[in-house]
Amino acid sequence: MPDRTTLLIQYRALQATVRAGLGKPEVTAALVSLLEEAKAFLAENCSRAAMNSGVPGKQYFTFTDGARTSRPVNADLFKAEIDPSALAELAAAAQGPPDSLLLRQSLYSWVLTFCAANDVLFVSDQKKPGTFFEWFVGHLLARRYRTSPRKFTEVASLGMNTRIPTDFVFDLGAGKARIHLPVKTSTRERAIQVWAHQRVLDGLHGQNTFRGILVCVAETNKQVQANSVIEVCVPEQWRLYQGYIAQLHRVYYLDPPAAYLSLGAGSPQIPVKHFSEFFSESDRIVSLA
Amino acid sequence: MPDRTTLLIQYRALQATVRAGLGKPEVTAALVSLLEEAKAFLAENCSRAAMNSGVPGKQYFTFTDGARTSRPVNADLFKAEIDPSALAELAAAAQGPPDSLLLRQSLYSWVLTFCAANDVLFVSDQKKPGTFFEWFVGHLLARRYRTSPRKFTEVASLGMNTRIPTDFVFDLGAGKARIHLPVKTSTRERAIQVWAHQRVLDGLHGQNTFRGILVCVAETNKQVQANSVIEVCVPEQWRLYQGYIAQLHRVYYLDPPAAYLSLGAGSPQIPVKHFSEFFSESDRIVSLA
Repeated sequence: MPDRTTLLIQYRALQATVRAGLGKPEVTAALVSLLEEAKAFLAENCSRAAMNSGVPGKQYFTFTDGARTSRPVNADLFKAEIDPSALAELAAAAQGPPDSLLLRQSLYSWVLTFCAANDVLFVSDQKKPGTFFEWFVGHLLARRYRTSPRKFTEVASLGMNTRIPTDFVFDLGAGKARIHLPVKTSTRERAIQVWAHQRVLDGLHGQNTFRGILVCVAETNKQVQANSVIEVCVPEQWRLYQGYIAQLHRVYYLDPPAAYLSLGAGSPQIPVKHFSEFFSESDRIVSLA
Repeated sequence: MPDRTTLLIQYRALQATVRAGLGKPEVTAALVSLLEEAKAFLAENCSRAAMNSGVPGKQYFTFTDGARTSRPVNADLFKAEIDPSALAELAAAAQGPPDSLLLRQSLYSWVLTFCAANDVLFVSDQKKPGTFFEWFVGHLLARRYRTSPRKFTEVASLGMNTRIPTDFVFDLGAGKARIHLPVKTSTRERAIQVWAHQRVLDGLHGQNTFRGILVCVAETNKQVQANSVIEVCVPEQWRLYQGYIAQLHRVYYLDPPAAYLSLGAGSPQIPVKHFSEFFSESDRIVSLA
């Protein structure tokens, strides 16, 4: 029966494949295996409890084992019937697929399956869900670009000759933009760090050398007392960051807040999209043409 | 006898005076009263336990009531005999005093008295010590500049006409630089936020309109298993932030790490000093001459 131990064993097995390199086929297999375990836990041990939604047009529930509850789960995006093994097709595809409701639901369901199972099994552990999501996104981009990311950048300026730690960075070789890939389950007050890191990379390597691609799950906030969920968004602050700190090239969400999607039409523009759209625009993202 | 309840009563009383305005004499009185309470708690209920120091040239101890322990306390800077009521003189002084060991010890002892007492009484509460330190520093600058700070800035650009939240900002009127005053007990990975906020203010209001003054307690990190203390510093990253994001005018510490003090001699220069030095250079800090 799936439990803390069996989930942790699968998580550690995934971690071992990640150490060998994101983008390797072994990572896909370990991701699928971990998701099968988490899916079985939710199916066998948890039921759904409705939440009061403070988000217009969206309904949320939590998974619960009777004692502990998960983060909010978007009822329109989470589909229990979605098969973890279908992730292998997406990870293997050289192009596309185009954006679709099924692709949105698949990406969301895979990620929330692990996060919700971990929430119920490991109360107040934010670390494994955050790290899992980094691996999940980093691996899909590594597969798509046939390149493993690094987590540092070279510094040869200001009298230094060293490396500093970064989020994932992809170097696709001559003639392609490089990618700066911060990955966060939600941004909260940490969003400004993403723009600031982008500015440091712009300073070190020149404007438009690194394209900043931020990938997030959602901006939902669970209010336990009221059993309700709201989205916490600061679109005016994001416009200041995009206007005065640096430019992000894309912000992708699995469950995008309407307040951020509308920034795609503003000035300064911030292209905020469903992460599902990445797979059909992945070539354009790195094109210098 | 001092306990959780009596400390909390004094904390709430201080909070009420802060709401009426930092810089008012009532805040000084409430700070002194809170510190007397915290000092009595430490004297009557706590003993000192030595720590293994991983910081060259510095010795640390913790306060403990036998069951719970405080954050690390620098043994050369904390002097139990320092009187909370002497804070009233510093808050009332129009100029100086010059930097001295006694002033360094006084500032450090006042702040650590509350933080250590709160650590022992309210396990894993980081919020009250952080807020207390914001009030403590914000009040001393408000007294010195005879001006209450605000916590927002006007935005009339990028198609917006609104206010956004900031750290403390002081507007001293025509002919003086304004001050942007972030206050943090330690910076950790949040330091980059300070430079990024400074850049947004530079963009909104023009370069050198706001001078960025970061005030911190220390960068000590307690390692519970080993009963040891280290300093966590990333001076190379700070130089990148100062070179590529924005310029901070001062960084003050109560217990400054040597790795950051040495940034005052580098390029790009970051003037890192003892907070005690502020009081004799407060006029120069805001001078446009």
